[in-house]
This record gives sequence, C-alpha cells and structure tokens, in this order.
Amino acid sequence: MSRFFSEKYSNLTPYTPGEQPQDKKYLKLNTNESPFPPSPKVLKAVEEEAGKLELYSDPECEKLREKGAEIFSVKKNQIVFTNGSDEALNFAFMAFADEKSPLAFPDITYGFYPVFALLNNIPFTEIPLKDDFSIDVNDYVGINKTIVIANPNAPTGLALSLKDIEMILQSNPNNVVIIDEAYVDFGAESAVKLINDYENLLVTGTFSKSRSMAGARLGFAIGPEELIKDLNTIRFSTNPYNINRMTSAAGVAAFEENGYYMNNCKIIAENRTFLKNELEKLGFFVLPSKANFLFAESERIDGEELYLKLKEKGVLIRHFSKERIKNFNRITIGTKEQTEKFIKTVMEIFEEEGK
Amino acid sequence: MSRFFSEKYSNLTPYTPGEQPQDKKYLKLNTNESPFPPSPKVLKAVEEEAGKLELYSDPECEKLREKGAEIFSVKKNQIVFTNGSDEALNFAFMAFADEKSPLAFPDITYGFYPVFALLNNIPFTEIPLKDDFSIDVNDYVGINKTIVIANPNAPTGLALSLKDIEMILQSNPNNVVIIDEAYVDFGAESAVKLINDYENLLVTGTFSKSRSMAGARLGFAIGPEELIKDLNTIRFSTNPYNINRMTSAAGVAAFEENGYYMNNCKIIAENRTFLKNELEKLGFFVLPSKANFLFAESERIDGEELYLKLKEKGVLIRHFSKERIKNFNRITIGTKEQTEKFIKTVMEIFEEEGK
Repeated sequence: MSRFFSEKYSNLTPYTPGEQPQDKKYLKLNTNESPFPPSPKVLKAVEEEAGKLELYSDPECEKLREKGAEIFSVKKNQIVFTNGSDEALNFAFMAFADEKSPLAFPDITYGFYPVFALLNNIPFTEIPLKDDFSIDVNDYVGINKTIVIANPNAPTGLALSLKDIEMILQSNPNNVVIIDEAYVDFGAESAVKLINDYENLLVTGTFSKSRSMAGARLGFAIGPEELIKDLNTIRFSTNPYNINRMTSAAGVAAFEENGYYMNNCKIIAENRTFLKNELEKLGFFVLPSKANFLFAESERIDGEELYLKLKEKGVLIRHFSKERIKNFNRITIGTKEQTEKFIKTVMEIFEEEGK
Repeated sequence: MSRFFSEKYSNLTPYTPGEQPQDKKYLKLNTNESPFPPSPKVLKAVEEEAGKLELYSDPECEKLREKGAEIFSVKKNQIVFTNGSDEALNFAFMAFADEKSPLAFPDITYGFYPVFALLNNIPFTEIPLKDDFSIDVNDYVGINKTIVIANPNAPTGLALSLKDIEMILQSNPNNVVIIDEAYVDFGAESAVKLINDYENLLVTGTFSKSRSMAGARLGFAIGPEELIKDLNTIRFSTNPYNINRMTSAAGVAAFEENGYYMNNCKIIAENRTFLKNELEKLGFFVLPSKANFLFAESERIDGEELYLKLKEKGVLIRHFSKERIKNFNRITIGTKEQTEKFIKTVMEIFEEEGK
C-alpha cells in the first residue's frame, strides 16, 4: 500500500478470482465457464462490429435492451446491461444499501458480496446456511436489510423456490432484495417473472455461464423501472460506455441464438446428473445442484489434497479455504468427455494414493 | 429516484456523454473520435479471440501489460489497464482522494471529474482557468490537494509543459498528481517519462482517441509501482475481469501497429492547422490546441445557435452550456474531407443567416 492510499480502503481484501492459467494446458473445471463455444452468429457479429471500433458504443445499449426485453418478456426500461454481472451487483449494492439499509447474505455464497460491501463501506451480516447448506428462509423474513441471494447459490448449487423468494420480498417491503441468477439457466426458476409484482425486487444475470461469453463481460439487471433508473444514475456517473461495441454485438447475436444456448444448458444438466452419479459411486457426498457445477466432498480424501493432486495431473477444480467448506471442492460441469476424464483422474488419484 | 435509492447518491448528477446517434447519418465531430479505422491487424486479432469467448479473460492482462511496458518504456508493474480511461480516473479518485486529501482541478475541464468526486463523496475545488483559458500553475503550487489535470486540457486543447507539471509535483509531495493524457498523442509532451522521478505522479491514457478504439473501451494508468498496486487493489475489489478478451486482443494488436496510429496523429495535427486557419479566416477566435479538437467562438454567431444550425444540416459538434464557455464550440478534427465539409457548412449557415 502506498502512503497516498485512502484510509477508506486500507482494510480492503480484494476478491480472488479462480485461477486463469494462460497456457491452456489444463482441463479447466474451476470457474464455471461453458464448455461450448459461442454460436457462429456471435463470431460473425463481432467481426462486423470490429470494423467500427473508432466510434464510441451506444451508452443507451438500445439494441441490447430491445433484444433483452424480448427474451425476458420485460420492458426495455426494466433492464440495464453491465460489464459482467459483477458490475450489476456493485451498482446495486451502491444504489440500494448503506448504513441505514445494511446488507444480509449467506455465510457461504459468492465471495464477491463481502468485498463489494467493504468497498462501499456498507455494514453486512453473513447469515449461516443450515447444516445441509440450504438457506433457511425464516432467517430472512422481516429483517429490514438489503438482501442478496444467489439462486442457485454458489458454490453449493442449491436453489430456492419462488415461493420462498416471495416470502422474503413481502416481509422486507422497505428494502431491495437482489436475486443473483448467474446460474439460473441450468435448472432453477427465475424470479424475473415477479418484477411487476414487487417494487423491491432486482434480478441480476450474466452471459458468462449459460451463454458462453465469460470472456466478453456482459451482465444485466432486471427489475422495476424505478430501480433500473437508479442503477443508470450510478452507471452514468461511473462509466456510461461500460459496454463496448463488440460485447454489445455479441450479446445481441447471443439473444438471437437463444435456442442454441438453452439446449447447451440441457446437455450440461444431463452431464451434471452423470457426474453426480459417478462421484457418488466413488463415495463422494454431492449436494443436489441446479447450477453448472457440483459441490462435493469425500471422506476418502481431504478437499485441498484432491484439488492439488488434480492440478498436478492437469485438471483444475475450485477449492475454497473457508473453514466450513474446506473439505469440499466445486467442480464445473463440462462436456461428457471432460466429465469422464475428470472421473478417471480422480480414480487414478485414489489408486495411487491407496485411498 | 426510487424510495430505495441510497441518500449517499441523492445529489448525484450523472455525466452527460456527447450525443451518440445510432442512425449514422451525421458528420460526427462531437466526441473526439478518430476518423481513421483500426488497423487491419486489430480486426484480425479480434476475430481470432471471438472464438474463445466462453473462457474468462486474463485478470492480470499479462500480454497487454507486456506490450504497454514496451511502448511506454516502463515496467510491467507500472501499468494497469481499465475499461476506458474513465475507469482509471474513477479508481484513481477512489484510491488517492478523500476528505483528508480533497481534489482540485480546473473549472473548465473534463466534465467527469466533478461527477467522480461526487460519486465518491470527495470534496473538490474547481480552480478557475485564466482569462485566456490557460492554467496558472501557481494556483496549484503547494495546495496539498490531490490534483487532476487534463494535459492537453479539454475542451480547450491547451497544454502544460513538463516543467510546469514538475513544479506542481514537487510542491505537493504528499498528494498524488493525476495527469490525464487522453489527448497527449496529438502534440503535447507526455509525463510518463517522469514516473520514476516522482512517487506522487499518476498518468492516465486511453485508446479511444489516437488509437481508433473508442468503441472498444480500453484505458490505462501508468505510475510508480506502489500507486499501480493500489489501483489494482481497487480493481480487484470492483471488477477483476474489467477487460474483456476482444478488447485485450485489440489493444495488443494496436500496440504492435503503433506506427500506423502515430502517423494518423500527425495527419490530425496537420488537419488541425488547416481547420484553425480556415476558422480564423471566417473570423473565429480559436484556442491553440494540442489535441484532436479545436475550441472556437465567433462574434458573428452565438455558440449554441451554431451548434443547432449545424446539427440541422447533419453536422454534430459539441456545445457546453456552462456560462463561461457557452459561446464556444468544440470541434473534433476529422479527415481533410470532413474538415472541408464542416467549413463549407459553417459558411452556408453564415450566408443563410446573413451573418
């Protein structure tokens, strides 16, 4: 830290992204990317747009909002696009949480929530998940806090029902409830259909997982027009051109190819069932995931040891050092072949280590 | 504003970007874009990268930093890349200014500075430019504030010498001095060469102007390693994947084609001289610009009227309503043909209006 660094941020512990080795030699099952390439139409759209890079992008994201409104059956003014859903979350934390409206989220969830809270100097409460890693909805009823829930949750993969989410929305009418749907397309039910019923509901989403665009950085927030207006006040005070031309064009094309991506999600869900079964055959305890990853542990091998042995063998999965989940690993669902290779490598390790 | 919007931001007035009409029918001389397309190598790099969009980008921006270090003769750890230089400026304001280190910048300068200050709740002083719109360096000597100066300044185009900048750096040893070099490649002297001499110097730059990449959103900050480390603390707490794959690849290719872009800057500087002469022939008062725009006024026509009449005729320039400069307009330097068309249109207006 330099002697010029503002005291405001002196206690900040930045987020640690999953490893992104640039040499490409790993089977990468650590950051919940899609194993499927973007649709050829996306590539074509990007190519066309690259020739116009000398001109600024549209700060209103008109075309993206039109297509997004179509796909999600919302109005154009009920959606805003961001540089990844991280930016949507940060903007939402800024807009709807502060000392008077502190934050609440589960103790085991997306690791960026506490970082955004610290960054924006917002007090926060981490509410422990139940022993089975599920959310106890009663813990969120009438707490008068700005609530953020990943649904499905990460890294557990467990999903809440819309009925549960409505209970939280109804019992906290003076606070915004943010539902982070980064993984919703893999099997959970989206809360987007509730945005006209609750003025305090904000849903965030991303193109990084189900739409094979982690490298393009495109996210969004959907909610009542008034909330989206507030997010735009923050966006236009931070980075009005947050979405570049190429990402914008890729996003429009991806929306047009929605069928391709939703079919990929189905394949992932099938591979998830396959992988869960295989892991259980090997004696793993696996949470019932609705996301594109599994969260699993085994009594046969320590979580960190498994992660390290796999890494030695060219397979990356995600290990978290947090006490409560340190024996677990999060494994991204890849193609059938990748999933088979992963299982084969785990079996090799068990054999070599005499587990 | 919704009833959920944090009081912290209730007085926020977002930045107003220059008009970005999406119908493409205007001669666009209003947002200081380059009239030259990106190099073909940039297009090729983008096309190649679009095929890998399903994978996250490199949060360390390794390749960009390597190339950037080469181009600017700095170390890899003395540069950080951002989503446009707006993000670099916002991060720098966050990191190096607060109640204890309030901000100071000219009254007439880039309109985003006061917005970033309000966004981050940083007190700021706007120091009036001299009557000739130049900066009086003495106003910044020993003021013990975090100083931000656009060099050349916008929308005036006037540049400070490095000697003046050093005087500001030396006399404010306990504050960071941010030199915003968005327009430096068109004729001013860069302060990058001073970063090893002053621990309090931070230089920001952008690919939006001289490198024909406004639509790709790529900016950077260069400074002593300790300052860059602080900016990375903010970056990794906000958006570690702030640079998407396509923009990153475009940036690397643009650095490799540096000669092409620097030659374009020379052409722009020639066209600037041409346009200044033409405007002066028509009786305009034109500031001596070192940027890719001219700031000009005429007693023959009101600033806003000229802007509106030009818009009617399909030519966009930038008008600011701020009292002190409301008779001026900022005109982006285009190609020779665009410049000629602009002058012709101004002459038409004078004729039609009997000015």
